[in-house]
Amino acid sequence: MTINDVAALLLRHDNYEIITHHYPDGDCLGCGYALCLALQQLGKNARVVNTDLPERFEFLAENVKAQDFEAEYVVSVDVADEKLLGCNQEKYAGIIFLVIDHHKSNCISAPHKYIDADAAAACEIIYEVVKALGAELTHDIINNLYTGVSTDTGCFCYPNTTPRTMRIAADLMELGCDSAYINKIMFETKSKRRVELEREVLDKMVFCADDQCAIIYTTLKMVEGLTDDETEGLASIPRQIEGVRMGITAREKADGTFKISVRTNGDVDACEFCRQFGGGGHAAAAGCTITGSLETTLDALKAAVEKAL
Amino acid sequence: MTINDVAALLLRHDNYEIITHHYPDGDCLGCGYALCLALQQLGKNARVVNTDLPERFEFLAENVKAQDFEAEYVVSVDVADEKLLGCNQEKYAGIIFLVIDHHKSNCISAPHKYIDADAAAACEIIYEVVKALGAELTHDIINNLYTGVSTDTGCFCYPNTTPRTMRIAADLMELGCDSAYINKIMFETKSKRRVELEREVLDKMVFCADDQCAIIYTTLKMVEGLTDDETEGLASIPRQIEGVRMGITAREKADGTFKISVRTNGDVDACEFCRQFGGGGHAAAAGCTITGSLETTLDALKAAVEKAL
Repeated sequence: MTINDVAALLLRHDNYEIITHHYPDGDCLGCGYALCLALQQLGKNARVVNTDLPERFEFLAENVKAQDFEAEYVVSVDVADEKLLGCNQEKYAGIIFLVIDHHKSNCISAPHKYIDADAAAACEIIYEVVKALGAELTHDIINNLYTGVSTDTGCFCYPNTTPRTMRIAADLMELGCDSAYINKIMFETKSKRRVELEREVLDKMVFCADDQCAIIYTTLKMVEGLTDDETEGLASIPRQIEGVRMGITAREKADGTFKISVRTNGDVDACEFCRQFGGGGHAAAAGCTITGSLETTLDALKAAVEKAL
Repeated sequence: MTINDVAALLLRHDNYEIITHHYPDGDCLGCGYALCLALQQLGKNARVVNTDLPERFEFLAENVKAQDFEAEYVVSVDVADEKLLGCNQEKYAGIIFLVIDHHKSNCISAPHKYIDADAAAACEIIYEVVKALGAELTHDIINNLYTGVSTDTGCFCYPNTTPRTMRIAADLMELGCDSAYINKIMFETKSKRRVELEREVLDKMVFCADDQCAIIYTTLKMVEGLTDDETEGLASIPRQIEGVRMGITAREKADGTFKISVRTNGDVDACEFCRQFGGGGHAAAAGCTITGSLETTLDALKAAVEKAL
């Protein structure tokens, strides 16, 4: 499939439900709302279905029309695996019509798939799709796209950033997106409770494999009363420490599991590491879920790390 | 003067001394070494003169040839004022031949000046100069330029970033600069001791004026054995906290004083605040010195904050 094929396919049908992955981030939300806004602009019925919408991302959905229609075609954006649909998995598994994604490991089975693993953010693909659709790049659309591109690259800092990423961001800035506002909200604002959580997380950080791996964790008690937003993005903390090749974040969930995020400099394969726990992702950033207590989870991680490094 | 005029002027002469501002940052160093490398490549004698060269920037100078010559022409890069030459001020004041800068406020008097206040980083200008000189954009030159462009924009996050900044970075990345390595060193590497300092600073953070002000401090004991690099940039911590209109950093000095940095979003006048302690600066960023113990210094600050907010 080419970008033009994706656009032609979307133009041929109507009544779209666009779905994103659970724990939605700036990229899947940016993709979802940008595509939805473009389709609505072209006279289509479309809505975005998320498991939730964190407060700081609410502005992305601000000018999306609430339309009353029966969904016919399901489009997934930035979803590598049906398992990542969270509470929407049962509803959408097996009925996805079009998959648009930038994860090499994408394993969704669907009649139409467009995967571009060279895209740092899935929003890079949606930018091309919106243009190929012939939709106007409105203020809301470009803000959605910029949010996706900037958040998935850590504000153009992560190694996944490419010249194409930079040029798309340049285009979006030239078109008048609110890059300064978005960057301030996404990268330079922390709640007081978030700062307190960071302090506690640093206090409890664990090193292993001769300090080449740092593991941080949050328990349900540590994040009690905090929003998902306030507990997001801790994964960058261990990775930043000098000499650390693998940074791991373990977050306790209410269902008795720990959600694991692994970040590496790319020389250690984070995806391969997570696959042994049934997860996946990219070489530099991947994730998985481990069932167990804090102690058994940390022990399992440490044992796997000693083997990997 | 146009960029081509700058290049023609540089091509006409020889034996250059390129000077940077004191407390050199990635932008002035990137400018200095990129220009020096380009001039050397074209058969000229050139050297860079800094007040110092912090360790993490040493790679920028790696392939600059040490040439033995008597300097004839002095070029300043990214230096807004002769006062900012630090210990080199006396040597170079009044003899600067060519000024290349992006500070609107540049007040150096020189026969040749090229100021582009729209450039987020002075390295954006040097990129154009190197191309106009007809020099090859070697690996060392593009690494210097990328370092300048990325550090002066906080990795493309600060509001000074423009589409031009993004496109120049895209060009440099396409030419093969080590953007991932540079970003990692500049933005994503903290020593273990730095992380420990941040934890201690967060532990001791003080809020006042209904949480509208956050004060952090370091004592001599807290920073014992740490390099300047490791204690830099703490001022961004209190400023990032949601609801904080005034972020204050107090650093104990060996002479029994505390060096105070005040950061605001501009709505509270940091300069006016610091003036009551004999200091000054800008509306959003100002500083002063307070003589006293930690307790009396914090008390004085808190009392002044309660009045100001």
